[in-house]
Amino acid sequence: MATPRTTGNPSARTTVKRSPHRGHYERETLDAILDASFVCHVGFIHDGAPYVIPSIHARVGDTLYFHGSPASRMMRHMKEGDEVSVAVTLIDSIVVARSAFNSSLGYRSAFVIGKARPVEDPEERVVAFAAITNAVLPGRWDEARTVTRNEDKGTMLVAVPIEEYSAKIRGSEVDDEEADYELPIWAGAIPLRTVAADPEPDPRLAEGIELPGSVERFVATRA
Amino acid sequence: MATPRTTGNPSARTTVKRSPHRGHYERETLDAILDASFVCHVGFIHDGAPYVIPSIHARVGDTLYFHGSPASRMMRHMKEGDEVSVAVTLIDSIVVARSAFNSSLGYRSAFVIGKARPVEDPEERVVAFAAITNAVLPGRWDEARTVTRNEDKGTMLVAVPIEEYSAKIRGSEVDDEEADYELPIWAGAIPLRTVAADPEPDPRLAEGIELPGSVERFVATRA
Repeated sequence: MATPRTTGNPSARTTVKRSPHRGHYERETLDAILDASFVCHVGFIHDGAPYVIPSIHARVGDTLYFHGSPASRMMRHMKEGDEVSVAVTLIDSIVVARSAFNSSLGYRSAFVIGKARPVEDPEERVVAFAAITNAVLPGRWDEARTVTRNEDKGTMLVAVPIEEYSAKIRGSEVDDEEADYELPIWAGAIPLRTVAADPEPDPRLAEGIELPGSVERFVATRA
Repeated sequence: MATPRTTGNPSARTTVKRSPHRGHYERETLDAILDASFVCHVGFIHDGAPYVIPSIHARVGDTLYFHGSPASRMMRHMKEGDEVSVAVTLIDSIVVARSAFNSSLGYRSAFVIGKARPVEDPEERVVAFAAITNAVLPGRWDEARTVTRNEDKGTMLVAVPIEEYSAKIRGSEVDDEEADYELPIWAGAIPLRTVAADPEPDPRLAEGIELPGSVERFVATRA
C-alpha cells in the first residue's frame, strides 16, 4: 500500500481512499489499463457544473491524446488549459457473493488528472492522429487514406500529461463474511469480456477489396 | 432534431451540440441506454477540480440510485446535494472508414445531470439496495443473503433525479467523403459486444450447491 505524499504521485487527490489496498501507483500498471481500452470518460467543469463525456484516447509515452471538433465543450475547455480528469474502466467480472452486500465487480480502473493543452506542432499532430487511429484499430493508420490539410484544420487535438494518477484493481475473488460461507447460497464469479463479431463490409465496398490486416488481427484476438 | 429549450428537457446544457442529428431526448431512448449497462461514470467537483469515478447505477422510474462507502469522495458530495453528472456509454462497433478522419465508433450514450440527494427513508433504501443488486445480476436480490442492520448503516445510498438529460447515438454506418469511395481501401464495421464466460465457483463453495437462476440466465443471454 502506498503512503500518501504531498508531492509527486500519488498526490493527496490521486491516493485511493476507499479500499486502499486496491490502489496502485506504478506507471506500468496504469499504462496497461490505459492501453487496454480506447474509450475513456473525461470530466471537466463547464459553467460551474461537472460534465462527463466519453472519448477516444491514445497514450504515447507520458501523454494522453484526444481529438474532437472545435465546437465540442470538452475540447474547448481542454484547449484553454483547464484541468480535466480521465477515467478508464475495464469490467472483468461480476463477483457473486453469498450476501448482497459483498457482491461486487472485478475491475481495473485508471485515473489521471491534469491540465490539458492544445497540440499545435505539426509533427506532434501527426503523432497524435496516428496514435488515436491505431488506439482503436492497431495498424489502421498505415492502411487508411491519410488526413488532408482541411481535415487537419478542422480537428482539435489536445494532450493531457500523465503526471498525477492512480489505478485501482479488484480481482474476481469472493470475499464473504465468515459466517456466510455456511449458507446454502451459490457464490463465484462470472468473467466478462468484449468480443468482436464478423466484420460487416460497407454496402458500397468495391468488389475485390480484401479484409485488411488491422481488422483481421483485431477480430482474431477478440474471437 | 430537437430545438434547444430554456426550461424542461433538453436544457441548454443537455442539448447535443456536436452532430445534433445524433441527439435524442425521449425518455424511452434514454432509459434503454441507462438500463443496458450497470456501470456508469459519475462526474463531480472536489476542491474545485473535476473528478470522474466509475460506479454501479440502477434506475427505478425517474431516479438513478448509487451506493458506496460513506468514506468515498463521490458519495460525500452526492450526500451533500451537490450537482453531479452521470454518463453511460455502450460501444457497439468500430466504424472502419476509408479515411482515418472518418473512422469512428458506433455507440449509444446517455447523459444525466442533476443534484444528488441521500436516500434515508427505510423503504426507499430497500428499493435502492434491491435495484442495485438486480441491475448487475437480475434476480439476485431474492437469492442472496439479505442486508443486515450493520451493513445498512455502513452503506451510503444516494439518488439522482432523471430530469435533465440527453442521449446520443451513432450507428455503425460508414460515412466517407464521396471521392473516397473509389479508393481501394476496405471499409465497414466491426461489431463489439460483451460476453460472459462460464461461471467460476468460489473455491470455498460447499458441495451440492447448484448454479442459481440469476447466473444461469445472465450467462445464457450473453453467450
